[in-house]
Amino acid sequence: MSDKIYVGVDIGGTAIKVGICNESGDLLQTYEGPTETEQGTDAILSKIANYARHVVSESPYTWEQVAGVGVGIPGFMDFDKGFIKFSPNLPLTNVPLKDHLEAALNKPVRVNNDANVAALGEAWGGAGRGVSSVVCYTLGTGVGGGIVVGGRLIEGFSGMAGELGHISIVPDLEAIQCGCGKIGCLETVSSATGIIRMAKDAVERGDRTSLSLVETIMAKDVVDAAKNGDEVAQRIVSRAAFYLGKSMALVAVVVNPQRFIIGGGVSKAGEFLFSQIREVFQKYTQDKAQEGVDIVAAELGNNAGVVGAAGLMHNA
Amino acid sequence: MSDKIYVGVDIGGTAIKVGICNESGDLLQTYEGPTETEQGTDAILSKIANYARHVVSESPYTWEQVAGVGVGIPGFMDFDKGFIKFSPNLPLTNVPLKDHLEAALNKPVRVNNDANVAALGEAWGGAGRGVSSVVCYTLGTGVGGGIVVGGRLIEGFSGMAGELGHISIVPDLEAIQCGCGKIGCLETVSSATGIIRMAKDAVERGDRTSLSLVETIMAKDVVDAAKNGDEVAQRIVSRAAFYLGKSMALVAVVVNPQRFIIGGGVSKAGEFLFSQIREVFQKYTQDKAQEGVDIVAAELGNNAGVVGAAGLMHNA
Repeated sequence: MSDKIYVGVDIGGTAIKVGICNESGDLLQTYEGPTETEQGTDAILSKIANYARHVVSESPYTWEQVAGVGVGIPGFMDFDKGFIKFSPNLPLTNVPLKDHLEAALNKPVRVNNDANVAALGEAWGGAGRGVSSVVCYTLGTGVGGGIVVGGRLIEGFSGMAGELGHISIVPDLEAIQCGCGKIGCLETVSSATGIIRMAKDAVERGDRTSLSLVETIMAKDVVDAAKNGDEVAQRIVSRAAFYLGKSMALVAVVVNPQRFIIGGGVSKAGEFLFSQIREVFQKYTQDKAQEGVDIVAAELGNNAGVVGAAGLMHNA
Repeated sequence: MSDKIYVGVDIGGTAIKVGICNESGDLLQTYEGPTETEQGTDAILSKIANYARHVVSESPYTWEQVAGVGVGIPGFMDFDKGFIKFSPNLPLTNVPLKDHLEAALNKPVRVNNDANVAALGEAWGGAGRGVSSVVCYTLGTGVGGGIVVGGRLIEGFSGMAGELGHISIVPDLEAIQCGCGKIGCLETVSSATGIIRMAKDAVERGDRTSLSLVETIMAKDVVDAAKNGDEVAQRIVSRAAFYLGKSMALVAVVVNPQRFIIGGGVSKAGEFLFSQIREVFQKYTQDKAQEGVDIVAAELGNNAGVVGAAGLMHNA
């Protein structure tokens, strides 16, 4: 029990999840507590430090074995300085998070955004184990992403690398504006939000679909209807899959990863979705950039964040 | 004169160019000799070694100061092993180039493809000096590319990273097949070949354009006609610029480079082309991924290859 351990912290709007990983990226222990954002900045900073110490105190490991603490958080930040420039839903905007936690914990701390950290988690301890380079997509409310090459995140000049949801991929003639202000972003069609929007549009304009009977349409309803043969729903899922597959074809000749990993709620559609994505990927990707490259489901689910946060310190 | 020097070799179908760089990426001395591919594999291997020794012997430096020899060559290869799998126009297919040269020169050798090496040259000693991450486009017969992050090339799982000419970016309805077999690749519209093809198509279908008077249309003719107000030529150049700018918008949220560098024959169109590319880039790129990011012309011209080849050893 003298091995080094890595503590990961995944900060969300409702809960803060902490975990311990070993050198191999195995998640050994977790703890979760409420974020209680309404208590403000100081309270949340104390909670992070307390939860980190707590998960170790409840484990067979000692605080001395902790090589460092990694933190994943939604928002924009300076990764090197660990300074949070903006975090939606969290009272951590303009907070030097790394400095605070290093002082409180007396350990090196690294900070990154939630999508990158989830990608690193899958790459290190999930579906990307043992793979040289992976690109991860998280299909949720938006489309998140992260790129890991040789165990390290590609962060980009201003932290915008791996923002795969904002690949401008839908041609102008069929594009709509994205929440980011630009048009044609991948997440306008391939996120849960995008799928729900397309379904609502179809119902509103009177397309004949079983979805017109659903009171509050969720992405899962659309996928289920498509699986049951509803042609309108099939067209919507195919469109989401088309642009995902096409975006992977682009990424394949830009970073040429060995594996694409897809997680998030929409990915639960499973092979029905994946087979369509693979077909498009094969059609548009140069042969040499798809040889030996696979597209697989994420494995860690909600634990990707803590594992990846711990991974920030492992490959630091 | 006891500093380390780096030798770069740029192997082309007609000439082999060698050069010496210092630690800063300055090109100190060059030498060039004929490739004479018809003399076969052994002859070309001897030439490379001889030219490398020659350029140093004619310089104020000694062979002992050579930290290593880098080689850029068109084709597909295993970068780590330095094994050439296929090289068009050169008798080096299935040749363990690195092993041969290390034995002949008694120095460490690294091998990479010509597009990557040109990108590294610009990043290290050209338009990317002092910049953290650059993406280079070379607009010639095809569209070549290379991505340099933190001074190192992103090579990809099978060496296909930075193959920017094969980004599948033209929508199906207006796409044609690329030489690679796929459809909609960037180089079908934004290379010299693509521009010439679009011009010939316009002339053949009877579009009213001054290009119908040109016997053998070159890309420069199309650019010149566009600058002179020929609307058909303007549309062709704008289309080439549109997909270049749009591809950069994609790359901006995948690797988020600090600078895009454009070289190759077509880039000589200058600001006329660049201003159109920038406009498209600004339109389609998320604000945070374009802040502080610029699009500039390459600086090293035909020397990018030797400088980048030398750079393979500098950041090895």
